[in-house]
Amino acid sequence: MLEETMTINIKRLMNTINESAVIGKLARGGICRLALTNEDKKMRDLFRQWLLDAEMQVRVDDFGNIYGRKEGKNPQAAPVLIGSHLDTQPEGGRYDGILGVLAGLEVLTTLNNMDIQTERPIELINFTNEEGSRFEPPILGAGGLAGHFDQEFVYSRKDQEGKAFLSELKRIGYHGPERNRIQNSHCYLELHIEQGPVLEHKHLDIGVVTGIQGMDWLEVNLTGQSDHAGPTPMNMRRDALYAASKIIQIIRETTVNLDKEATATVGRLAVKPNSINCVPGEVTFSVDIRHSNDAMKERLTQSLIEKISVSAAAEQVAVKVDKIWESSATHFSGSLVDLITENAKQLGYSSQKMISGAGHDAKYMNLITPTAMIFVPSVAGKSHCQEEFTEAEAIEKGANLLLKTVYQLANNNASFK
Amino acid sequence: MLEETMTINIKRLMNTINESAVIGKLARGGICRLALTNEDKKMRDLFRQWLLDAEMQVRVDDFGNIYGRKEGKNPQAAPVLIGSHLDTQPEGGRYDGILGVLAGLEVLTTLNNMDIQTERPIELINFTNEEGSRFEPPILGAGGLAGHFDQEFVYSRKDQEGKAFLSELKRIGYHGPERNRIQNSHCYLELHIEQGPVLEHKHLDIGVVTGIQGMDWLEVNLTGQSDHAGPTPMNMRRDALYAASKIIQIIRETTVNLDKEATATVGRLAVKPNSINCVPGEVTFSVDIRHSNDAMKERLTQSLIEKISVSAAAEQVAVKVDKIWESSATHFSGSLVDLITENAKQLGYSSQKMISGAGHDAKYMNLITPTAMIFVPSVAGKSHCQEEFTEAEAIEKGANLLLKTVYQLANNNASFK
Repeated sequence: MLEETMTINIKRLMNTINESAVIGKLARGGICRLALTNEDKKMRDLFRQWLLDAEMQVRVDDFGNIYGRKEGKNPQAAPVLIGSHLDTQPEGGRYDGILGVLAGLEVLTTLNNMDIQTERPIELINFTNEEGSRFEPPILGAGGLAGHFDQEFVYSRKDQEGKAFLSELKRIGYHGPERNRIQNSHCYLELHIEQGPVLEHKHLDIGVVTGIQGMDWLEVNLTGQSDHAGPTPMNMRRDALYAASKIIQIIRETTVNLDKEATATVGRLAVKPNSINCVPGEVTFSVDIRHSNDAMKERLTQSLIEKISVSAAAEQVAVKVDKIWESSATHFSGSLVDLITENAKQLGYSSQKMISGAGHDAKYMNLITPTAMIFVPSVAGKSHCQEEFTEAEAIEKGANLLLKTVYQLANNNASFK
Repeated sequence: MLEETMTINIKRLMNTINESAVIGKLARGGICRLALTNEDKKMRDLFRQWLLDAEMQVRVDDFGNIYGRKEGKNPQAAPVLIGSHLDTQPEGGRYDGILGVLAGLEVLTTLNNMDIQTERPIELINFTNEEGSRFEPPILGAGGLAGHFDQEFVYSRKDQEGKAFLSELKRIGYHGPERNRIQNSHCYLELHIEQGPVLEHKHLDIGVVTGIQGMDWLEVNLTGQSDHAGPTPMNMRRDALYAASKIIQIIRETTVNLDKEATATVGRLAVKPNSINCVPGEVTFSVDIRHSNDAMKERLTQSLIEKISVSAAAEQVAVKVDKIWESSATHFSGSLVDLITENAKQLGYSSQKMISGAGHDAKYMNLITPTAMIFVPSVAGKSHCQEEFTEAEAIEKGANLLLKTVYQLANNNASFK
């Protein structure tokens, strides 16, 4: 059978990736290609041309999501979807998002070159503003398509200069009609770099992603007493940074004691007056709490809020904790996860099931269609930085696994319902 | 005897203080009067007029220090000096520095009004740029006068806009000749607010200052690994902020265990990338270490440097520690301290000897003449903020103690050598 011998062309795929990496290129090899900027337009124009070169039907919807459709033998059948995003962080890498779109293009090109037409259509999607670096919150294009965000909300998002999503979408010429949104679909697949160190650490080829962790964001404000660092004896201080340092210890300890999967991160912290000879009077910091089980996440969050309050009181520091963001856990299709796991095994790739700690377009696509993701290893776990890197060999395996799985699903010869 | 019944006029002194507080007044009652600005010029002009009104001989030296001289019966005798500064922090209070100058003026006015001429001349000095908020380092005027800083160094200090000390000094019209510097002196006295909570806490009227703590400033840089907060398990992190929080605990613990006097303050701290969903990759923070005994200060600093390195290594975080400033402890004249203590007792004021944790003009004046300071309580220990406050009753006691001591010293009837 054809499907057992066919492989993507890694050289061609790497060429495509390298060509895309020129647009918005940074000094140390990374990319700055924020959503709906001139760089994004340039990338979109190139991607559109690639889709047309591959004889795909191209359309753009009202969120600027770009679709390339390879027709199936049965045009009425619900299509198999492949997608990700071509926008980046301000100092992003060459693979985050981009790999999923361009590996999808490579899958379609491979099928084309073998003159294969599948039963079902296959649609490749580039989603708008996944990163959320320019327009908050992230994943706006997929979230709009899936109905998680309504059109008015998406259109009214503004960047730091006050420019709105809609006006920028129109400015770069990618504002399509609402009718171009995906109407029905068989399933959605997304290949992505892991963005963490686990696969590399365990020397695994593939992560089969079973879902995305739920997330709570807290903002903690501690108010002590700002004093002159000289004349204030240690035992008469109400040092907000000292109190914060105790709390950071407690957050780590509590999280590690819950289970292996839970994470809690104090990523942002500001000190006032932040002067070398002043006892800190006020400290504000964030806590990012994640777990794939919403009940466990909630338990951890509540436990942290309690312990933060107790610890602050012990230091005579006033405390205010606000939950500023909450996102439920996502559970992908078990059938798809099993199919991908089995396919990886047949291809001779080592794999494990894993939870994604980061959000992806797949998070919202999962709301409207059976969804799963394939992870390939990130060198040193780095992402959202210019050093982000994945070996070509690892990319080849991920793309071949995507090809095999898409081919099966589009021909209804996979045990997937 | 006159000296036993004479007192300053607290109403007049508070009026003078209130009048000065209009220049550079801030919304919440504080003052912004940075050295050599237009506000500083306005304050200097007013102060100069007050000196002239009090029939003093006024002169300005090459650092802009302003002297008002009340002639003695013996004009050749070395004068008794009183001084402090009229410049403030960017959000400073109404008393820090100002009290010392204007209480000195009140002492001289009191003597004038009683037609008292002392044996020795008395000179009142307003020093330039004590705060160091505009031109670093602090205490430039007194340090220049005392020879701790040379003229070229002082003149070349620049503010954040690149304006030099000398050009700003000339611009506001306070660049006098070098010959106007103080040539000889009998002793130097400075009345100041405590800027700490100890006197208020112990319900004491007066602090008799025996010296100024020595100080080391460290800058600590920790480099771990910045990772995405989601996909990076807790046990695979090299979190620079977590490492810093452990070190902040250790700094406190080590300092408290040394003795009651030692202080160590982490006042400034910056996180990179400082993003809510990123594990902190880099943290830089300051440590301000103080002790009145230089050997103990050095012991504490060395101990902290060692423990910081050990703790960082345990968290797999690279560490760099730089000593960015060092200042030896100052020991004031024991004779003057005893005299002030005795005078406080005679006036019925409660007092204790204490070390100043903050720097003052007295620090450098101590290099050229016997020096001591008198502290009055700061409400809630606050200073370098708009809420800085000292009760008029407390000010009255401090000023009366200054009057009595100056009178004795200027008449050579104090047991001081």
